[in-house]
Amino acid sequence: MIERVNSLLMKNCLLDSKRPTLIGVSGGPDSLCLLHIMDRLGYRLIVAYLDHALRSDSSRDADHVRQITADLGLPFCSERVDVAGYAEAHKLSLEEAARIVRYMYLFKLADQQNAQAVVVGHNADDQVETVLMHILRGTGLAGLRGMSYRSVPNTWHNRIALVRPLLGVWREEVDNYIESNGLNPVTDVSNWDSRFFRNRLRHELVPYLEDYNPQVRKLIWRMASTLEEDFNVISKQVEIAWDESVVQESGAYIGFDTQFLRNQAGGIQRHLLRRAIYQLLPNLRDADFTAIERAVDFLNSPANYGRCDLLAGIYLLLEGERVWIATSAGDLPTIIWPQISKDQVYNLPVPGELPLESGWSLSAENGLGPEQVGDLIYANANQFHVYLDAQSINPPLLIRSRRPGDRFKPIGLDGHSIKLADFMVNVKLPRRARDHWPIVISDREIVWVSGYRLAEPFKVKTGTRCIVRLILSRESH
Amino acid sequence: MIERVNSLLMKNCLLDSKRPTLIGVSGGPDSLCLLHIMDRLGYRLIVAYLDHALRSDSSRDADHVRQITADLGLPFCSERVDVAGYAEAHKLSLEEAARIVRYMYLFKLADQQNAQAVVVGHNADDQVETVLMHILRGTGLAGLRGMSYRSVPNTWHNRIALVRPLLGVWREEVDNYIESNGLNPVTDVSNWDSRFFRNRLRHELVPYLEDYNPQVRKLIWRMASTLEEDFNVISKQVEIAWDESVVQESGAYIGFDTQFLRNQAGGIQRHLLRRAIYQLLPNLRDADFTAIERAVDFLNSPANYGRCDLLAGIYLLLEGERVWIATSAGDLPTIIWPQISKDQVYNLPVPGELPLESGWSLSAENGLGPEQVGDLIYANANQFHVYLDAQSINPPLLIRSRRPGDRFKPIGLDGHSIKLADFMVNVKLPRRARDHWPIVISDREIVWVSGYRLAEPFKVKTGTRCIVRLILSRESH
Repeated sequence: MIERVNSLLMKNCLLDSKRPTLIGVSGGPDSLCLLHIMDRLGYRLIVAYLDHALRSDSSRDADHVRQITADLGLPFCSERVDVAGYAEAHKLSLEEAARIVRYMYLFKLADQQNAQAVVVGHNADDQVETVLMHILRGTGLAGLRGMSYRSVPNTWHNRIALVRPLLGVWREEVDNYIESNGLNPVTDVSNWDSRFFRNRLRHELVPYLEDYNPQVRKLIWRMASTLEEDFNVISKQVEIAWDESVVQESGAYIGFDTQFLRNQAGGIQRHLLRRAIYQLLPNLRDADFTAIERAVDFLNSPANYGRCDLLAGIYLLLEGERVWIATSAGDLPTIIWPQISKDQVYNLPVPGELPLESGWSLSAENGLGPEQVGDLIYANANQFHVYLDAQSINPPLLIRSRRPGDRFKPIGLDGHSIKLADFMVNVKLPRRARDHWPIVISDREIVWVSGYRLAEPFKVKTGTRCIVRLILSRESH
Repeated sequence: MIERVNSLLMKNCLLDSKRPTLIGVSGGPDSLCLLHIMDRLGYRLIVAYLDHALRSDSSRDADHVRQITADLGLPFCSERVDVAGYAEAHKLSLEEAARIVRYMYLFKLADQQNAQAVVVGHNADDQVETVLMHILRGTGLAGLRGMSYRSVPNTWHNRIALVRPLLGVWREEVDNYIESNGLNPVTDVSNWDSRFFRNRLRHELVPYLEDYNPQVRKLIWRMASTLEEDFNVISKQVEIAWDESVVQESGAYIGFDTQFLRNQAGGIQRHLLRRAIYQLLPNLRDADFTAIERAVDFLNSPANYGRCDLLAGIYLLLEGERVWIATSAGDLPTIIWPQISKDQVYNLPVPGELPLESGWSLSAENGLGPEQVGDLIYANANQFHVYLDAQSINPPLLIRSRRPGDRFKPIGLDGHSIKLADFMVNVKLPRRARDHWPIVISDREIVWVSGYRLAEPFKVKTGTRCIVRLILSRESH
């Protein structure tokens, strides 16, 4: 048994026996067994006890653990917290409140004591019960893998590992160790109280399932162990996809590249959306399955625009080349677009430059002849650099935002005129950006919807002698 | 309900209503409901019934289904198979035998009828029961995702899809449909027979779990649906890793690139090893968890050589740059190495060429001066092209395999001599290849362990005027 735990400590838990390690000891068989074995293996232990104040005799247990620690000559810390009060204040179950209060205490202490890890006594049966509990409450890969031998960062700390060396040891083996070493654990009455969901699993559900298959505990343990590896594979893929597809993020929104997100496998899309939601609402208990399904369906629909409410005020906004997951509180960013004040008209001399918001600018160059720009002038391949016939305009050009009734003759439609509003929809110009989009005007006619399309009357023709180049650009940041 | 199924058929099952579709109808509520709905939706159905001959009155059910089919004006096929006999002959449970016989029949028929798919009536409750059954029997991601709306290729056919449109419909909804449409299903007595594991799950375990959480069926269904996506993500990764890491395969062995396999995440390694085992033994029921764990531990140990027995006569052989998963029956390939007959000595004239086995050859070139080969001659970076001082050898060179007592002065050891046998171990020359490895000899002294190391006395020195180049190469294939 000691050898087994030693091997788990070295191979799975990666602990350094010479660095201080905080061990949470409830006084029950698991933590007592772990304390005893790690002490014999020469680990530098600091013993911590949290009195949950859930039973009138709980301070007696504290004394018991203190005595055991003193016998081993180890440092001892303890604290008494009103878990029932905490549960009521935070609307939590007693079990959940106890768990949170306990880990907060252990990691606070570990941080103060400069410990490498918090070690706790969960055993293989606890693992099986945890997996079953997750299944009963609804879960995915993250829950099915159960607990880990070592996890860092974890919910409680970024640097200090949460370590569970006994995850590979069955309760029966712990009990045998306790007995054969004459150890004297406290008997936690709550273990026999079916009030706690987990205890009901332990004492009723697991034996019931063993009636179907006597091997079921072992099989569920192995399932969790295999799924932990699968989870790691997926997490790595999600990590890569996140880095590649998230274009912008703040505490109030996360912006994805639409095309990139759509090209991901369904499983990765779901994980990315779930991660975005959790990042915006870290305290969310459960990213509801139906919300994620709704988001995935919406995202993959042919629509390029629209809003889809997800949960808890979080919505998905599909906006051309961006998909936003955002809280209702946050203003989405517009700095990715060239924008101008809605009610003002600006002059753009030729040549000249006009700075816009957020580092964008419009500029005009003249004095170019057809020989200098070659075939480029006909191709108009780059919508951010367009070429016009200098004779067709009347400088200075005016820059303003759109107005009701604006019409426009996009190049390529044989001089046919369409509503600017329709054009903006057709080219998927982001809805939020339309009212502030810079439009280039000459003699009351639209010359260029900047960044999108030149107007037919202003294009370079075969007889054009003198060419003006308009440039929409942004300083790199 | 019809709309729901129509949407599942189009979105999840991808069926073409104009192409023939084979539907397996037992006459129970699920298949009857599916038959009725798909017929109303205008699918071109062929009805198939398999009489399992498990009950004395089973031919009455056949007549019932035949009558329903006739009323709908659809083609009907049926067959009677002795499932009990098949179960005994193949040492299967009745349920397992019935399943195999049924699908074999349905796909044989679908093939004959040129059907696009075999459609069966599994519902959402069946899905939940399947997942629970897998958990109780031990499973991983593949089993936890349950059944799929559409799977092709599948166990039964490479081209014809197995389709389950009702996977998203609960048994209660099916029953409501049956009732409100006045349909008349057969009552399969085996449904109420706890002899079948699945029936015990349905009538005992699921209600028991609902006592823990009334939502549990829905939650398990969703879990399976999410895991299906995760499974697809992992499968794709495994596919990529397989293509990149499998160097050779036959019906008796699969050879991996050691380094590539070791660099994979643990989860991917396990999937690759499991896939290799299943490919060698397609009828294996279960690639045992412990065998895979043993293989992974062995693979990742620092050892570069050795054999690890896995299961059912399959072993893992770690051999330097190759990892083999092989059946005890199969001879592993040696064609990846240059090999010669063990008892013969060959001449290699200078200049000249000597063909070896499997497209390999050794050749010698002369007439090179230091100015032609530059610094290459000192670097010896490419162990397949080495340069020697022409004056140090006495042509023709001899090529032979190793002999007991052979010693050798590897370059870089200051002319120190070591046993050839030790050298081969040190450089991890594959054990199976050592006895047939071509060694280059001049005047009884080892000049070159081809592909590995030149001997010190033959190297190019500062005063060397004339250089010989030896090349070990293989024609590309």
